[in-house]
Amino acid sequence: MKTLDINCDMGESFGNWNMGDDANVMRKITTANVACGFHAGDPVTMMNTIAMANENNVAVGAHPGLPDLLGFGRRVMTISQDDAYAYVAYQVGALQAFLRAQGMKLNHVKPHGAMFHLMRDAENSKAALDAILDVAPDAAFYWPGPMGREPITAAAAERGMTVIPEAYPDLDYTQDGSLIVERKKKWVDPSLIYDRVCQILQHKELTTEAGNAVPMDVPSVCIHGDGPNALDILDAVRRAATDSGFTIACAVR
Amino acid sequence: MKTLDINCDMGESFGNWNMGDDANVMRKITTANVACGFHAGDPVTMMNTIAMANENNVAVGAHPGLPDLLGFGRRVMTISQDDAYAYVAYQVGALQAFLRAQGMKLNHVKPHGAMFHLMRDAENSKAALDAILDVAPDAAFYWPGPMGREPITAAAAERGMTVIPEAYPDLDYTQDGSLIVERKKKWVDPSLIYDRVCQILQHKELTTEAGNAVPMDVPSVCIHGDGPNALDILDAVRRAATDSGFTIACAVR
Amino acid sequence: MKTLDINCDMGESFGNWNMGDDANVMRKITTANVACGFHAGDPVTMMNTIAMANENNVAVGAHPGLPDLLGFGRRVMTISQDDAYAYVAYQVGALQAFLRAQGMKLNHVKPHGAMFHLMRDAENSKAALDAILDVAPDAAFYWPGPMGREPITAAAAERGMTVIPEAYPDLDYTQDGSLIVERKKKWVDPSLIYDRVCQILQHKELTTEAGNAVPMDVPSVCIHGDGPNALDILDAVRRAATDSGFTIACAVR
Amino acid sequence: MKTLDINCDMGESFGNWNMGDDANVMRKITTANVACGFHAGDPVTMMNTIAMANENNVAVGAHPGLPDLLGFGRRVMTISQDDAYAYVAYQVGALQAFLRAQGMKLNHVKPHGAMFHLMRDAENSKAALDAILDVAPDAAFYWPGPMGREPITAAAAERGMTVIPEAYPDLDYTQDGSLIVERKKKWVDPSLIYDRVCQILQHKELTTEAGNAVPMDVPSVCIHGDGPNALDILDAVRRAATDSGFTIACAVR
Repeated sequence: MKTLDINCDMGESFGNWNMGDDANVMRKITTANVACGFHAGDPVTMMNTIAMANENNVAVGAHPGLPDLLGFGRRVMTISQDDAYAYVAYQVGALQAFLRAQGMKLNHVKPHGAMFHLMRDAENSKAALDAILDVAPDAAFYWPGPMGREPITAAAAERGMTVIPEAYPDLDYTQDGSLIVERKKKWVDPSLIYDRVCQILQHKELTTEAGNAVPMDVPSVCIHGDGPNALDILDAVRRAATDSGFTIACAVR
Repeated sequence: MKTLDINCDMGESFGNWNMGDDANVMRKITTANVACGFHAGDPVTMMNTIAMANENNVAVGAHPGLPDLLGFGRRVMTISQDDAYAYVAYQVGALQAFLRAQGMKLNHVKPHGAMFHLMRDAENSKAALDAILDVAPDAAFYWPGPMGREPITAAAAERGMTVIPEAYPDLDYTQDGSLIVERKKKWVDPSLIYDRVCQILQHKELTTEAGNAVPMDVPSVCIHGDGPNALDILDAVRRAATDSGFTIACAVR
Repeated sequence: MKTLDINCDMGESFGNWNMGDDANVMRKITTANVACGFHAGDPVTMMNTIAMANENNVAVGAHPGLPDLLGFGRRVMTISQDDAYAYVAYQVGALQAFLRAQGMKLNHVKPHGAMFHLMRDAENSKAALDAILDVAPDAAFYWPGPMGREPITAAAAERGMTVIPEAYPDLDYTQDGSLIVERKKKWVDPSLIYDRVCQILQHKELTTEAGNAVPMDVPSVCIHGDGPNALDILDAVRRAATDSGFTIACAVR
Repeated sequence: MKTLDINCDMGESFGNWNMGDDANVMRKITTANVACGFHAGDPVTMMNTIAMANENNVAVGAHPGLPDLLGFGRRVMTISQDDAYAYVAYQVGALQAFLRAQGMKLNHVKPHGAMFHLMRDAENSKAALDAILDVAPDAAFYWPGPMGREPITAAAAERGMTVIPEAYPDLDYTQDGSLIVERKKKWVDPSLIYDRVCQILQHKELTTEAGNAVPMDVPSVCIHGDGPNALDILDAVRRAATDSGFTIACAVR
């Protein structure tokens, strides 16, 4: 049976500051990447986000970031391999506590922002992967696809981890298939998202900004929940999946 | 067989700032209360502290505090019950990650500083005890003895938790048996500590500042590792235990 | 000439988290209380907020809070008098830097949240007032009116400070004239605000939740800029002032 | 009259964590670079450090760093030019508040750690220099000498700032005259420091690790106050200055 996983960064509020419409987004996704307090999120937000995920039968992964609330974890920092290991272990463990309290299991780990960028380097990524294996040996690992393009996916596979490649239909890709990340989420035309998801599911490729198509054989798409029309975009993804003959379900379970 | 547990607050360094002589203290104690990053400690310090505990066969407990690095978690804050639950769960889970990575189990939880003071209130303590049970159901709970003096020990016992009462031989007690906590650790005469521990172990009581003796039937003593002569004090405790016919071992295992 | 000052808490965003519609609110107020980084605000937000105030000819005051981003500075903490002095001095000085860079002067200081509550105590308030005088001797001091009800206003007047009492027309008052602060800002009927401001300006009193009227002879009203209809409320305040024959202008300049 | 300035990083404690023997170091230096709360220091520490400087007639400069307490401001972060401007302005202003309260003036600004590294780039340094000029137009600027080696010293001179080049006699230099910074301060032989300072003062050059001599015509030396024998090193510097016919005094006043 063909399935499509829809994952979304969740729990990115902090104290009195709200980000994203988590209560409504949670109804439309299969998989939540939950912030763990370093770049966003706080203990009460994590607790509430996981309770919402549980109610909506959404799988939960850890979304560890760098300790930089002010920069939302998007500023690259020169951290050591000990730092990388310990930051990932700490955040994964903290999230597991709230999952355990709800009778849930950690589904996956997906690095956030500059932590993601640091892990594109082969040396840097070892410590983080070791931390995941030591702390949550059954967790899958989400990474932008297509698979095999970066050293970390090979390293994760070598360690026996389940790697879930993902596409970003609400972002543009460069001619060579690299993501173009923008700081401020903009309105995106839901019909464009519909077409892109259909292209991914039916043709296993995606058209870039330059007009060429790059291979995109992925079981999961990531949608940004803090965009101005995130709910409409999620509906478009769901219609595209249904219209392409796919069931919407988490890629791991 | 009669045993004495020696517990000590450990892992209280933060980044480049060092506190305590953990490498040497770890050789002389049975049980470490490890800071979890809110009032002290950081991920790398936690990782290294637990590795040291493992090497020295020391049992490890979580020492959760309030989110107040600047005040070392000693300033009372008006937090909600949701906050209390989530702060304890988050910190216990983060510590468990490092324990799991070392093949160790969480021995106990012991609240730190103002978190301890907040938990002296019956209402406030429920949320924190629930968090411990939800996240680490097998963990013991350390609390100043003698047992039964405060609502939380009854509440913990009702929940089926193992409560370990402890004495503080390097602090003074008031006439009614309350602890006198001082912000700055001072030099304490090791022979005074020797006498106090002998009194606790042989007579199950302790002489207060006022000269009267209060009941002190406890299996554990807590020593402050950041005092100027902490190692000498620990040696005095160990001699007092041996001379009183006690073996030095963790109270839980 | 009769004038009404409209002050509003501004610059309460933090990093990527936005709070309030500052760009539009700034067009409708005379006086901004700017967060200084302890409970909200960050250096870039402060810089941008002050530039906006300058463009709109809005007077700027410091809005110092407790070091508790997670609790938005609303949780009472047991700080020392040294802490109170140093926290106020630090935050006022940081804000003055951005004012100096824009050729502006600090108009006033108004304590935020739990810092405000701590300063309701006579002993606690001395250190904070001393800090203001030492760092910004010409700054006025905003405090909920009517004047003279709390020790700090007498203490400020003794020190020669200009005290500006203020009313909160978008909050309810108890029978004895105390403010009822709510954590979550709700929609408030602009016509209610209009009536309340007219009552304050024309009759120098305000009707409480209990139905009685309390004296409210104040030159300034504080409006919450993060409420769901803050702009409509500000328009109602401005209409009430004009209709009552008042010019809208900062109370200090 | 020939004078030698001795500057030292001060006020690097944080809350309950102590760093350096500031009370004794302050007696032996002319100029203190005071941490401003981002990488180290806190409001009470700043207040106390400046009071100590005042008692000892020591000139005070701001030592602004990146917002990274956990990494002591030594980890390079990819900050924007707005960030650089605002971080410097905020920290300089906060320090000026405590100086104003003591009737003192800001002597200089000296960037710390990774903030220093970011400012070695011509583009990055503009924003920081603009912040200094906007907030403290009379402050000097300290930078490792010899002068003119990096773009920022030319840019500072163009803006009319007084640039004070400095040598680091307790660190090694590479063959081309670059500093070798080590994370952990080690014991250094005071007689080596004596010889180096004599060489700087009498011959205006310094011998590198490779054995060659590089030009070192500087009016100031920086000594690390947190090394294990900092007081002995400071005494050696003072003897070398006296024996070379130099008076010990701040380079700016």
